[in-house]
Amino acid sequence: MQSEIITIGDELLIGQVVDTNSAWMAQRLNEIGVELKQITSVHDDEAHIRQALDEAFSRADIVFTTGGLGPTKDDITKHVLASYFNTHLVESHTVKEHILQLYQNRPDVLNRLTATQWLVPEKALILENRVGSAPLMVFSQNGGKNQQQYLFAMPGVPYEMKIAMEEQILPFLSQHILSGAKKQITHRTIMVSGIPESSLAIVLEKWESDLPTNIRLAYLPKDGTIRLRLSGYGVEPEQVDYELHQMKDLVKEWLVAEQDLPLEVLLGEQLKAKKATIATAESCTGGKLAALLNKHPGSSAFYKGSVVAYSNEVKHNVLGVNADDLNRYGAVSEPVVLQMAEGVRRLLNTDYAIATSGIAGPDGGSPEKPVGTVWMAWATPTGTCAECFHLGSLREQITDRACMKALIRLLQSFR
Amino acid sequence: MQSEIITIGDELLIGQVVDTNSAWMAQRLNEIGVELKQITSVHDDEAHIRQALDEAFSRADIVFTTGGLGPTKDDITKHVLASYFNTHLVESHTVKEHILQLYQNRPDVLNRLTATQWLVPEKALILENRVGSAPLMVFSQNGGKNQQQYLFAMPGVPYEMKIAMEEQILPFLSQHILSGAKKQITHRTIMVSGIPESSLAIVLEKWESDLPTNIRLAYLPKDGTIRLRLSGYGVEPEQVDYELHQMKDLVKEWLVAEQDLPLEVLLGEQLKAKKATIATAESCTGGKLAALLNKHPGSSAFYKGSVVAYSNEVKHNVLGVNADDLNRYGAVSEPVVLQMAEGVRRLLNTDYAIATSGIAGPDGGSPEKPVGTVWMAWATPTGTCAECFHLGSLREQITDRACMKALIRLLQSFR
Repeated sequence: MQSEIITIGDELLIGQVVDTNSAWMAQRLNEIGVELKQITSVHDDEAHIRQALDEAFSRADIVFTTGGLGPTKDDITKHVLASYFNTHLVESHTVKEHILQLYQNRPDVLNRLTATQWLVPEKALILENRVGSAPLMVFSQNGGKNQQQYLFAMPGVPYEMKIAMEEQILPFLSQHILSGAKKQITHRTIMVSGIPESSLAIVLEKWESDLPTNIRLAYLPKDGTIRLRLSGYGVEPEQVDYELHQMKDLVKEWLVAEQDLPLEVLLGEQLKAKKATIATAESCTGGKLAALLNKHPGSSAFYKGSVVAYSNEVKHNVLGVNADDLNRYGAVSEPVVLQMAEGVRRLLNTDYAIATSGIAGPDGGSPEKPVGTVWMAWATPTGTCAECFHLGSLREQITDRACMKALIRLLQSFR
Repeated sequence: MQSEIITIGDELLIGQVVDTNSAWMAQRLNEIGVELKQITSVHDDEAHIRQALDEAFSRADIVFTTGGLGPTKDDITKHVLASYFNTHLVESHTVKEHILQLYQNRPDVLNRLTATQWLVPEKALILENRVGSAPLMVFSQNGGKNQQQYLFAMPGVPYEMKIAMEEQILPFLSQHILSGAKKQITHRTIMVSGIPESSLAIVLEKWESDLPTNIRLAYLPKDGTIRLRLSGYGVEPEQVDYELHQMKDLVKEWLVAEQDLPLEVLLGEQLKAKKATIATAESCTGGKLAALLNKHPGSSAFYKGSVVAYSNEVKHNVLGVNADDLNRYGAVSEPVVLQMAEGVRRLLNTDYAIATSGIAGPDGGSPEKPVGTVWMAWATPTGTCAECFHLGSLREQITDRACMKALIRLLQSFR
């Protein structure tokens, strides 16, 4: 079953908004075996939307649209879809009741523009949008060759789209559309670190060229790791697992993790299993590592807190870093980062602590310590160690990579 | 001048990677007056890439591709483009020298797969990729009607793509392609907060319907603000500014900022102008606010540090929050958040401080304090105040919105 996503909105095409919806939808669709053929972003423009719909339905039988369902004048998706599917707008009593209920304590929202939200295309099936006023619409048409085609229209606001997918559209798909035979897609991903992509490819070359044609390998480098993804199309999961096993054996010395989970989740699982706690002392990463560690629910089981010591004054006053060492070696140095890690571990009373201090740029570099130099330390119940990295030349890249390195090294020490 | 972006890679279509490249490129193109018609994401599949190229060139004369230029087997873009433009691969001495130079200290990278990177399409113009081994390629063809068409192929790794755009492709575009007449596009964006989108649309309705047809208004709700963007196509910037002035007058009571800059940048500018410093004490936002405040270069001028007090122990021990208050009122309460703000302001010796404490969920909610409840406090040289918000039901949404609210309120207090 092939599908496509069309995201609609001028804001996407002038770069004011990053399309995070498509990747999230792609993951979910993939999980239920719906292959995503293409993602297309188009303007709030009728002719352009129609052309994108024609092209999408020429390749796929399920099309998802997001965006353009607001009550304001620039949003035209509902009107375009009504016309595309040869129907017209009628008032929906159910949608009206729902919207009145939704905004019962918000009389300021219940104005005449919001009232246009309960006008829906007569031929569309309307699913409930629990958290917003935009109607979730399902259209269907005969695509020729006795093939029924479907269009699902959703709001572009990410959390509304996610709730719509989880609660309405994915169940609808499973129940009404995917009940027949479907092609099984199996993905398996492992993460490695510490070897260049091209060298890895040489290590795997012989094995890779012997792979069955319906099992494919992809290399996905990201933030200091390379994810190796095996994808099996229409084969038994066991066959993919067999190849996975072969591959793991070939790359075991660089292995970071055997699941495709975010590094901070993997670390959290390890810490919970140890009933251990962690804290961070951050200079160059500036709180990013903290935010990663508490990003997911349940993180209070292992994460207690952090000190972002951006200025030297805070490193000294709060974390107890020796002022002489700060002067003599500079903030980006082994003694300072060791003291930061130990200082925060003591102050916050945790089992583990990570400290970072680096030159994120664009200024502040020197010949001895160019932009991208990051010292990192890990304090553990059995001692503290430090390491220096050179993580590139761009601010965001440096701090993101530093966070990843910090997690990778601690994860590797647990293996 | 119309353009399109084609992003190439299976990882985009199974949702393993969010396409952040397109939005960034869209912004840059917009700035130089190149309109972006469509963004398309396709698989590493020859037939699919060819179809996307045909469709893109039917609508636009400039096409950008990202991705699929690595040395490994799954990357096929270079081969597909060579065949699409009827040429073949030849060894490039210049690219070879560059790659040997680039990896002179990394003999492990200089293997036979990397050597395939200096094979380039004979008919393509090769631009220098300063930071990687993938060739930047420019193809051109006659698109009929005496119209020359161009394709720029770039790596998909975001920082390589950005450097390629900034240093090579944007200058190339300006110099060789855009030198003739171009349609002037003018965008003006202001931010408002504290009014529902539909009410705002009613406030602006009369004025909006009187807008000239080549000036359009878009509503872009995001994280508690609504950005109002006026776009003028082929009109003088002064005419857009005139309409902007009218619009600002209509929405002045909800105005947050008059520029389309990130809120943390606007706040940083204000603090620098005041020669004032800031710190944060974060519970539910967990370091996100810290990371926002030091995200941009130059933030050390106003940002000193933060305490992420995720556990009550840290709130008490490090920030000096009264233990009785923590017990009596709970961590998510006015007295606690006031003490957190004042505690971190004192500890880090700053002029301003922001504190957050909330229930980010999914667990921990109660009838009195449901998930989404966030208390926030702002300590300033003239006193401390606190406010309670209800910011939705999803963890990431709640913490992102809390960061935005924290910045919005402080910005509004500066107006």
